Amino acid sequence: MTKKNSEKEVLAAFKKVGARVETKARAKLKNKKDFALFYTPGVGVMAKHLAAKPEEARMYSVKKNSVAVISDGSAVLGLGNIGPYGALPVMEGKALIFKELAGIDAWPIVLNISEKESEERIDRIVETVLAIAPGWGGINLEDIKAPECFEIERRIVEALNIPVMHDDQHGTAIVVLAGLMNAAKVVKKNFKKLRVVIAGAGAAGVAIAKLLASASITDIIVTDTQGIINHGRGGLSSVKKDLAELTNPRAVSGDLMDALIDADVFVGVSGPGTLTKDHIKVMAQKAIVFALANPVPEIMPDEALAAGAAVVATGRSDFPNQLNNSLAFPGVFRGALDKGIHKITNETKLRAAKAIAGLVTHPTAQKIVPDNLDKRVVPAVAKAVR
Amino acid sequence: MTKKNSEKEVLAAFKKVGARVETKARAKLKNKKDFALFYTPGVGVMAKHLAAKPEEARMYSVKKNSVAVISDGSAVLGLGNIGPYGALPVMEGKALIFKELAGIDAWPIVLNISEKESEERIDRIVETVLAIAPGWGGINLEDIKAPECFEIERRIVEALNIPVMHDDQHGTAIVVLAGLMNAAKVVKKNFKKLRVVIAGAGAAGVAIAKLLASASITDIIVTDTQGIINHGRGGLSSVKKDLAELTNPRAVSGDLMDALIDADVFVGVSGPGTLTKDHIKVMAQKAIVFALANPVPEIMPDEALAAGAAVVATGRSDFPNQLNNSLAFPGVFRGALDKGIHKITNETKLRAAKAIAGLVTHPTAQKIVPDNLDKRVVPAVAKAVR
Repeated sequence: MTKKNSEKEVLAAFKKVGARVETKARAKLKNKKDFALFYTPGVGVMAKHLAAKPEEARMYSVKKNSVAVISDGSAVLGLGNIGPYGALPVMEGKALIFKELAGIDAWPIVLNISEKESEERIDRIVETVLAIAPGWGGINLEDIKAPECFEIERRIVEALNIPVMHDDQHGTAIVVLAGLMNAAKVVKKNFKKLRVVIAGAGAAGVAIAKLLASASITDIIVTDTQGIINHGRGGLSSVKKDLAELTNPRAVSGDLMDALIDADVFVGVSGPGTLTKDHIKVMAQKAIVFALANPVPEIMPDEALAAGAAVVATGRSDFPNQLNNSLAFPGVFRGALDKGIHKITNETKLRAAKAIAGLVTHPTAQKIVPDNLDKRVVPAVAKAVR
Repeated sequence: MTKKNSEKEVLAAFKKVGARVETKARAKLKNKKDFALFYTPGVGVMAKHLAAKPEEARMYSVKKNSVAVISDGSAVLGLGNIGPYGALPVMEGKALIFKELAGIDAWPIVLNISEKESEERIDRIVETVLAIAPGWGGINLEDIKAPECFEIERRIVEALNIPVMHDDQHGTAIVVLAGLMNAAKVVKKNFKKLRVVIAGAGAAGVAIAKLLASASITDIIVTDTQGIINHGRGGLSSVKKDLAELTNPRAVSGDLMDALIDADVFVGVSGPGTLTKDHIKVMAQKAIVFALANPVPEIMPDEALAAGAAVVATGRSDFPNQLNNSLAFPGVFRGALDKGIHKITNETKLRAAKAIAGLVTHPTAQKIVPDNLDKRVVPAVAKAVR
């Protein structure tokens, strides 16, 4: 449990530190000899070599261990489309986590993309990321709004041969899957037979639905602001049409309350107030509630527990069971960089989730995932990546 | 004097160090309290704040002290258009120098720009740099070929309110001006009355001509592969038309030999073999020869001296008088970042050159500029920037 810092305290702390990451020399530059080797004329030899053999950049340059943390600021935390400057502190924070938890040299890149129209915006973001890609070992996309994020990620993954991951989608999905594996143990239910309701069909909701489905959970319902997503609904986007295909095998229709009848699991990636005590009361016995909206969850943990939930998790550090992406992305990229992996596959994500869950040998209602700062997490996830 | 490393030695050294720069945490992340402050939920406060007040990014983020070192690899060292992977080691080397000499957090960004047609290429490079600009405190453009580099720099400088400098142009010009100020003292000639011939009308040649002219040298002739640039020549590009306007007051025509008759100074930013002993013999007494093509200069220093040159400088670390940009760019950006300067003006460059020259109190033929690693250089240049 952690006391929440006041706005004033946060600003003062950030101002004092100035930047949360900096660069550091790895090569010395003490005398003319160093200068001649690591700068001119030595660098000319290296330049010529990599021009001829670009695939060796990973052996001889920052490409070996670097990740660009890239956002256009269109969907930052729960704050929405607040632009590149709003996104900068978040991306910088991820760069800090990359270094501290996984020894990865990450740097925040926030994009000023003026195009408003969706297709143009997608093109511009993809073009920009592809243009700056050569020097990086990996790319972590972040806080890019749905549905644009899906096509943006797909096109970038397709075009590049370095690991690329939109963390709002897959980092979240990995951690939710890990948490759910252990939560199922706590409530002694068969994981594959869990009835899951996901509230929110944005980046996270879509990726969670897909990953849980690929982990053999068959009864998944996704809801958005219009209610349950199913084939009967008109005007579905192509992403939601795919979701309707993948989920809702019992063809349930209606609103969140209808979806939750006898559900074992609620996963909220929507917003504050989505879930009430009444919702939980229609769920199955020993309900699992992941209320992941941040900083204000769909329901506060004490309320959820009072309404009968057996396991409650949030995205916050001041309650038990913090499901934060930092359990996943540092280890996923550590593993991918170490093993020279070009694509982060579905298999990668499943294995990463199992590795995270596996670190809690005796899960309890208060402890379904390891602590974010648990030193075992990154090596375990990295090892699982292959 | 430094022994030149063999190709094998260079590759082995680069492989051993892996990358010449890395990142380093400035904020600690040891426990849940740190995590809550510097990541979530604290970072949300910071994100909201900077979304509302983007101009404060310099107080609270990496923007305070960061410089992107950006190249498309179209004119790397003397190697030409070798692409982004060829450029990467050079940009990374500059990032190392930025940190070691000036404490600046710089990172290499190499661009994969597929457009070949000049105007499209310019647009794409400008768009990409503007798109990724928000998080950086400054932008060092590097190794972008002429004439595209002129428009690229102009448009980026115009669009952004952070210091932007194409170092091949202005870093080189600053260092040449500094060297020339002291070389004039060595040969006891009036600086403003020097007759200067610049061989090469690329990025460096154009910028040198402009900066020397603004330092009140009136008799400058620029030559390219077609000979002397003057109004009489047909088919001049707009950049060269401007040069014809600015230079060559005596309306000299012909080739380099014609230009050099009675010249006091030769500045070579062209290629090996441009200058011969015969060329130097037609120059004025006590000729100054800056043979800056790298790694192989226009003429080797011993030859130039044998032909009668009084002061010889090159870009190499294994001869006296190394005119390397690293005398200029670290201090220029240090000063600009420290003082929150939005544009690097002509006045900035003149003052930087004077500061560099001023560090050699008693210039000699063997010592017209301070050593690249002289600790006094960056503070002196930074102080001069305002």
